[in-house]
Amino acid sequence: MKGAQFPNPIYLVNPKYIDEDLMGYKFYDSISSIPDETPVDLAIIAVPAQLTPSIIEQLGKKGVSFAHIFSSGFSELDTEFDKKGKKLEEELIRNASRYGIRILGPNCMGIVAPKSNLTFLMSFRSMQEANKEFDSKNIEGLDDLGNLINNGQVAFISQSGGIAFTHGMLSHSLGYSFSKIVSLGNQIDLDLLDFLRYFKDDPETKIISMYIENIKREGNEFVRLLKETTAKKPVIIWKGGIFQTGHQAVMSHTGGLAGNYKMWESMACQTGVILVDNFVELTDMIQTSLTYPFPQTLGTAVLSMSGGTAVESTDEVERNGLLMPLLTQEVTQKINQFIPEINSNLKNPLEFGGKNSLEHTVKIIKMLGEEPQFSSIIMASSPEYLVFRRGNSLDDYIKAISNALPPHSGKILLCVASSMNMFEQGIKMNLEFSSKSLSNGFVVYRSTAAAAKSCYRWWKYGKYLEKRKIV
Amino acid sequence: MKGAQFPNPIYLVNPKYIDEDLMGYKFYDSISSIPDETPVDLAIIAVPAQLTPSIIEQLGKKGVSFAHIFSSGFSELDTEFDKKGKKLEEELIRNASRYGIRILGPNCMGIVAPKSNLTFLMSFRSMQEANKEFDSKNIEGLDDLGNLINNGQVAFISQSGGIAFTHGMLSHSLGYSFSKIVSLGNQIDLDLLDFLRYFKDDPETKIISMYIENIKREGNEFVRLLKETTAKKPVIIWKGGIFQTGHQAVMSHTGGLAGNYKMWESMACQTGVILVDNFVELTDMIQTSLTYPFPQTLGTAVLSMSGGTAVESTDEVERNGLLMPLLTQEVTQKINQFIPEINSNLKNPLEFGGKNSLEHTVKIIKMLGEEPQFSSIIMASSPEYLVFRRGNSLDDYIKAISNALPPHSGKILLCVASSMNMFEQGIKMNLEFSSKSLSNGFVVYRSTAAAAKSCYRWWKYGKYLEKRKIV
Repeated sequence: MKGAQFPNPIYLVNPKYIDEDLMGYKFYDSISSIPDETPVDLAIIAVPAQLTPSIIEQLGKKGVSFAHIFSSGFSELDTEFDKKGKKLEEELIRNASRYGIRILGPNCMGIVAPKSNLTFLMSFRSMQEANKEFDSKNIEGLDDLGNLINNGQVAFISQSGGIAFTHGMLSHSLGYSFSKIVSLGNQIDLDLLDFLRYFKDDPETKIISMYIENIKREGNEFVRLLKETTAKKPVIIWKGGIFQTGHQAVMSHTGGLAGNYKMWESMACQTGVILVDNFVELTDMIQTSLTYPFPQTLGTAVLSMSGGTAVESTDEVERNGLLMPLLTQEVTQKINQFIPEINSNLKNPLEFGGKNSLEHTVKIIKMLGEEPQFSSIIMASSPEYLVFRRGNSLDDYIKAISNALPPHSGKILLCVASSMNMFEQGIKMNLEFSSKSLSNGFVVYRSTAAAAKSCYRWWKYGKYLEKRKIV
Repeated sequence: MKGAQFPNPIYLVNPKYIDEDLMGYKFYDSISSIPDETPVDLAIIAVPAQLTPSIIEQLGKKGVSFAHIFSSGFSELDTEFDKKGKKLEEELIRNASRYGIRILGPNCMGIVAPKSNLTFLMSFRSMQEANKEFDSKNIEGLDDLGNLINNGQVAFISQSGGIAFTHGMLSHSLGYSFSKIVSLGNQIDLDLLDFLRYFKDDPETKIISMYIENIKREGNEFVRLLKETTAKKPVIIWKGGIFQTGHQAVMSHTGGLAGNYKMWESMACQTGVILVDNFVELTDMIQTSLTYPFPQTLGTAVLSMSGGTAVESTDEVERNGLLMPLLTQEVTQKINQFIPEINSNLKNPLEFGGKNSLEHTVKIIKMLGEEPQFSSIIMASSPEYLVFRRGNSLDDYIKAISNALPPHSGKILLCVASSMNMFEQGIKMNLEFSSKSLSNGFVVYRSTAAAAKSCYRWWKYGKYLEKRKIV
């Protein structure tokens, strides 16, 4: 919080340390001894589970109305025979409702709200400090929170603290920032639906993304709220725990998939929710939603380096639902004026490996932008060929391709950069390429499959809105 | 070839340059003027397509019996109305058969045979030189062929020259080397089956891998040969062009998938071939085959860092065919002696984020190695936590986990290192981790899904051999 330059007073409460201070903050021996001049908006509770109900009691007396319980050791540890955690949670709720306190958690990371400099993200050095009992190596890294607390447009609600933390920490390499991040924990009071309802109307939030494992309320209520929300902004859901059989491997295991996943799929169909399968797909989809208008059709053109990758790209593009219409003969002939037939293939996918240059690439993208049968263009080749072998700089490359599509064509250019690379320089360049992409109007995906999948899902949400006559 | 230290004479033939020399080699004005003292084993032909038939004629007169035609511009350019390329190829075959010459190609990269220092791979600097008409930047890179021509155990047959080249060039980061690489091209004479038959009996080749788009001979002959081969060594096939509709997007497109892919799948079932879907899966599968014994069952234990990734891993593991039996209570209790219950989950997946240490990790792997319900263990967490936050060195980490499984347990440990990373150091470390893995007895996959998929496929080949009573 200090690293994030939280502007308001922070009070540390712990009776054990009243004679000490921590980073310039003094310790109070109890909640009641906190000075009254500044009202306390939020209490972060990190004491052993069994002490939390009495802390809530004390907060109530102090007039604090919002508590984030970081502590674990509640119902998540319960077994069929031992419901101690559940009982503690009920006690928390009883105490909280007596004073009108709202609780986030327990067993969660809390909230990141960059606009208020409130965060649970930490710098690389802080992470090392947190483990300083170990002989940690002194590695140079991010020294302050820097752009980790940039104000952004993406809300992320997560039922996993680890995933909330990871997602937030990756912000600088993903090229987007967060309006808010919420780690939900056990949801004994404030839950997914409360936050979803809030983000629906939050003017700072342009996209709502979630990692969820289960819903604590009626399915109908959730579906209704989702429908209202998707009419206003994209909702991307990664549903974890699709397979119920992790803990019951002996039981029928396709059965588990069918029931559960089918339900989520039909919910997504009804509500326009964009369903994704894992973390990488979640970040791909957020980048896609932030960057592109809806593709009007499934027609895509694929630019490729070699015949083999062209075939691979075609398989991956079509496997993921897009279509690849042919180029018209007129366009092929126009391209043949500067790219000879030999060792190239100008149908779709287009490959012109040996005769590739930045100028030719841009020229071809421009031409494809005028063709009605394509709504999207997938560049299935990383920039390394043009940068390392043709001597272009990466920045020139980025600038050229980001301006290649005719303005207002309504079409989108999706790029691919492989994580497999012959040279370390190539990997480094691809990372730089990715991190600079969003601010230049395109997304860099890890594979053609990922680009196609995201494009297809984005098209589908567009069609959903069209059907509801929203766009 | 010079970079690869090809030990025998190389004769350059080109009448235009008879007064010049290239890297110390003189030019001959015709094939007939090459001195007779050393017999010529191989001719590499890189002249315009229409000249190739007369070159074959000249080679015949000289007594050269093997020609690799690099040139393109043959049947691959033909259209429905223009079969010029096909006619040229027929002329080539007529001329070749008159002299008993065997042809590889045309339209291909040729052969890499490290033992003979024969190669089409090139150093990074050579690649830049090849494009020196452009103002290429001088980037430090591999200066000679180094380990690109290491003698290895993997044969790769490819119908795409680009993929053959890429695969070869990635050898040093993939951690394996090649016995031979063959780029097939148009297969007018020597074809896939010829090479497959050769590699079946090649004592240097332990694994046969392929990229193929189509078969030029009878399906039955191919199936018979595959059956003979899989009885001796693993055959991994990446079939490109699963979707026939890239060029005919308007036509029914699931129809294309069903017919074609189903045929390949049933062929794989019959023959024990390991079918993969793309380049990354091909390399994953080669690494898997080179490294592990067959898993005896589908039972796998997953080690994870946080609750969220544990759920993600479970989904990915089960989606790809493996099963996750529970830990016995005895083992859970043993682990609870050093890892407290709070913030950990010791069923399966096992997650013990905050209390993770290298010592604990190794201890747990050892215990899992003794449990009969697991044949494989997937470490779904990259080493960065232990290296950056707990101060272990990567080499200690590698050493510890590579020795963790009890010898002769017959079980396998599969590792995962994400390409998404909060810090550049993490990405670099994961690359180093991957490149050192194979020589330490384990494989590092890019995702839990990839690990599970490869493990499942390897198990399936094992079962196939069992059924045929081969193992």
